[in-house]
Amino acid sequence: MRCEVVAIGTELLLGQIVDTNSSWIGEQLAIAGIDSLFQTKVGDNMDRMVATLELALSRSDAVICCGGLGPTQDDITKEAIAKVMGVDLELDDELAARIELMFSSRGRRMPMNNLRQAEVPVGATAIRDPQPGTAPGLICPVTWNGEEKVLYAVPGVPREMQELVLAAIVPDLQRRSGDVSTIFSRTLRTWGESESGLAERLAGRIAVLDGSGNPTLAYNASGIEGIKLRLTAKGADEASAEALVAEEEREIRAILGDLVFGVDDETIEASVLKELRAAGERLGLGRPLTLGLAESLTGGMMGSRVADVPGASDVFRGSIVSYASQVKFDVLDVPEGPVVSLEAASAMAVGAREVLGADVGVAVTGVAGPDEQEGHPAGTVFVAIDLGPLSGEAGPEAFHVPLFGDRLQIRQFTVITAMNALRLKLLGSARDPDPFGSDG
Amino acid sequence: MRCEVVAIGTELLLGQIVDTNSSWIGEQLAIAGIDSLFQTKVGDNMDRMVATLELALSRSDAVICCGGLGPTQDDITKEAIAKVMGVDLELDDELAARIELMFSSRGRRMPMNNLRQAEVPVGATAIRDPQPGTAPGLICPVTWNGEEKVLYAVPGVPREMQELVLAAIVPDLQRRSGDVSTIFSRTLRTWGESESGLAERLAGRIAVLDGSGNPTLAYNASGIEGIKLRLTAKGADEASAEALVAEEEREIRAILGDLVFGVDDETIEASVLKELRAAGERLGLGRPLTLGLAESLTGGMMGSRVADVPGASDVFRGSIVSYASQVKFDVLDVPEGPVVSLEAASAMAVGAREVLGADVGVAVTGVAGPDEQEGHPAGTVFVAIDLGPLSGEAGPEAFHVPLFGDRLQIRQFTVITAMNALRLKLLGSARDPDPFGSDG
Repeated sequence: MRCEVVAIGTELLLGQIVDTNSSWIGEQLAIAGIDSLFQTKVGDNMDRMVATLELALSRSDAVICCGGLGPTQDDITKEAIAKVMGVDLELDDELAARIELMFSSRGRRMPMNNLRQAEVPVGATAIRDPQPGTAPGLICPVTWNGEEKVLYAVPGVPREMQELVLAAIVPDLQRRSGDVSTIFSRTLRTWGESESGLAERLAGRIAVLDGSGNPTLAYNASGIEGIKLRLTAKGADEASAEALVAEEEREIRAILGDLVFGVDDETIEASVLKELRAAGERLGLGRPLTLGLAESLTGGMMGSRVADVPGASDVFRGSIVSYASQVKFDVLDVPEGPVVSLEAASAMAVGAREVLGADVGVAVTGVAGPDEQEGHPAGTVFVAIDLGPLSGEAGPEAFHVPLFGDRLQIRQFTVITAMNALRLKLLGSARDPDPFGSDG
Repeated sequence: MRCEVVAIGTELLLGQIVDTNSSWIGEQLAIAGIDSLFQTKVGDNMDRMVATLELALSRSDAVICCGGLGPTQDDITKEAIAKVMGVDLELDDELAARIELMFSSRGRRMPMNNLRQAEVPVGATAIRDPQPGTAPGLICPVTWNGEEKVLYAVPGVPREMQELVLAAIVPDLQRRSGDVSTIFSRTLRTWGESESGLAERLAGRIAVLDGSGNPTLAYNASGIEGIKLRLTAKGADEASAEALVAEEEREIRAILGDLVFGVDDETIEASVLKELRAAGERLGLGRPLTLGLAESLTGGMMGSRVADVPGASDVFRGSIVSYASQVKFDVLDVPEGPVVSLEAASAMAVGAREVLGADVGVAVTGVAGPDEQEGHPAGTVFVAIDLGPLSGEAGPEAFHVPLFGDRLQIRQFTVITAMNALRLKLLGSARDPDPFGSDG
C-alpha cells in the first residue's frame, strides 16, 4: 500500500508557511506501515493541482490532499478532485444544515459562499469532524487505469487535519490494504546516553524484535529533547497492541533504568515536578517538596520551562535570575570571588533555597559565550543542588559539566542537565549526572 | 524563469525531520522574482530521484536539489544528477586537496569514503563554501529537450545551504534569466497595530508602490513576533537597490513612527537594550541604564529573552521570578493582598529595581491559565514600570492588558507587551502601550 501526500497552497511555495502537515502525516503513515514515497507542494492553480494529483495516482494507491478546503475562491481542492474523478460537485444536505445551524446558533447570518463547504464530488463521502464549523474531510474513491484507488482531502489547519487523519483516514487506508490490525505506539524519552550507547545496551532486545517484527523499535535523536525510543505494535485490537508495547516497555525499562525520564510528550521538567511530589509523599510531609532556582547564564529559561508545566504552582516557588555578579553577592549571599565556579554554584543553590523558602535549591552558573569569562571558555557550566536540612549534614552538591554548541544550545543543555541531575538525586540514582563524562 | 525545489532524504518522508529548507528557498526565489511552482520531497532511492529530477526539468528551467551530498553510501544526489545529465563522476583535484588538508590540519587520517565528497559530474562546477570541511554545492548545466537548463545541488544542513543559495545560486539564476538587476530586501518589524490597521495607515504609500512596482511591500503577520513589513527593491547594483529601499523606509517610518521597533532580525528585547543604552547616554551617566525584572506568570521567560541578546550584561541585572505569592511578599516587599492587580505589579516593579540594584524595574503579574486566579480569567495581566529616582516624584506606572490565547501565548504576549511598554516609555512616546485597547 502506497500513499502520497500533496500539500496545497501558494503560501507554502512562497515560504510564508512551513509545511509541517506533510511531515506529520508521513510519520503517521510510517507508524501504520504504509509506504509514502513522494510528497509534493503545489500552489492554488487548477491545472497544476490536477496534474499533480494525476501523477500521484499513477504511482501510488492513495493520495492525501492537505489544504484548499476553505470557503474562499482560491480554495479549489474539491473542484480539482472532482475533475480528476470526472464527476461534478453536489450539495450534501446534511453538511449544509450543519453549517447553517452553526451560524444561526451564534445569531449570525451565513454568507452564501460558506455553502461551498457543503459541496462534495459525486461519489465521495464527507468525513464529519466532531467540531462543528470546521471544514469536513473527504474520502473520494476513484478508478484509475482499471485499479480502485482513493483520494482523501483534509483541511490545512493542523489540529483539524490531525483529527481527521487519525480518526478516519489511517483506518480507511488500513482497511483498503486488507490490514485489519490496530496500531499502538508509545515513545520512551531518555537522557544521559548517546544513540550508539543506547543501541549497545539494547542489542539483545533489538535482536529479539528484529526476529519477531512486532513490536518494532525506532530511535529518534532530537537534540535538547534527548533521544526518543518509539515502540510500535500491531494487534487485532487496540488492547492487544497496547499489551505488546507494554510488555516490551518493561523489558527496555529493566535495561535502561533511570535513563528513561518520560513517556510520549512528558518533558524532563514535568518529570522533576512528579518526583518532587513523590518525594514529599515518601517523606510524609503531606505536600510536595518545593523548588527554588538560581540562574545565571540561563537568564530565567529554567524557571520558564518549569512554570510551563500546567499545575507547577504546588512545587515551584520561583527563581532568582542573578545575571550580574553583584546580584549573586547581594541577593543570594554568594561570597565575593569567581562566579564561574563550583563554590559559586553551591552558594547560589543554598541562597535560592533560603531566599525563596523552598525545600530544594538548584543553581546554574557558567559561560554561554560567545566570549569567555573569568578565563573559562564558552560551555563551562557548573550545576549545584542543595537539599538543606533534608540532606542532613551533607550540604550542597555541585558538579562541572563541559557543554558544546552555540549560545542558545549551551543554555538549553544547561537547563536539561540541571533538571536531570535533580531527577537522579530524587530517585537516589548513582548515575553520573554529566552525560558527557565530566572532569569536575 | 521557473525554478523547482527537490528535497532529498527518506527521513523527510518519514516525518523525522521537517523540511524547512524548501520553504526558505521558496522565499528567496520569490524575493528574487523567480517563479517556483512545485516542491517535491523524495527518498534516498536512485530511480525515484532520477524520475523526480527529470519531471522537474520537463516543467521548469532550473531545479535546486537539497540534501544527499554527505560522505555516506545513502547520499546519492550527485550520482542521480550525473545520470540525468548522462555523464560520469570525476574527481575534482582541488576539492580533494581541500578535504585532505582539513583532516591533516586536525591531525586526523581521512577515511577514504570522504573523497566521494570531491567527486563532481563531468561538466558541473563546484561551488566552494568558504567554510572548509563542508560539502560543496554544484552547478550542473544540462540540455533538456534542446533547451539549456540547470540543476543545482546544495547540502541539507540549513546554514550551509543558505550560504550557497544566497552567494551563488540566486545570482546564477538571475544571470541565466537575463535579469542583471540586484535585489535588496529589508524587513521593518512593528508592534501595536493590526495588519488591516497598518494597511489603512499605509494606503497612500501602497498606491504609490503599486504604481511604480519597485520597491514592493509585503506583509507578514507572525504572531508573537509582530507584523513584519518587507521592502524589496531591484536595482542595477546593490547600492542603488538599497537606496530605493532606504528612501521608501523613510516614508514608511514617517507614517508609522514608533510602531516600528526593529529591522530584519532585531527582537523587541534587543531594541529595549539599545534604548536603555541611549537613555544612559542622554542622561550623561557614562553608562547604560540598567534593568531589573520581576516576573510571576512568565516564570522567567522575560529574563531569558533579554539574556538571549548577545552583550546583554551591560544592561541586564537579573530577574526575580516570584511565582509563589509569598515570594512576592518576602523578596519583593509586595504588600500582602491580591497579587493579580495594578498595585501588586507596581510594588513588584519597585521591588525588582531595589533588590536588583537597577535603574529601571519592569514587572508582570497575571493569569496564564487555564484556571482562573483571584476571580480573574486567564489572560488578565498587569504590567508595571518603575524608573525610581529618574522619574522624580512620579512613582511606578502600571496598566492592565487583557490577553487571549493559550497558556504559552499569554506568557509570550505578556513579555512583548511589557518590553514594548518600556521601549515606548524610553522613547517618550504618548502611544497607549496596550495594542488591544486596554480598559485598565
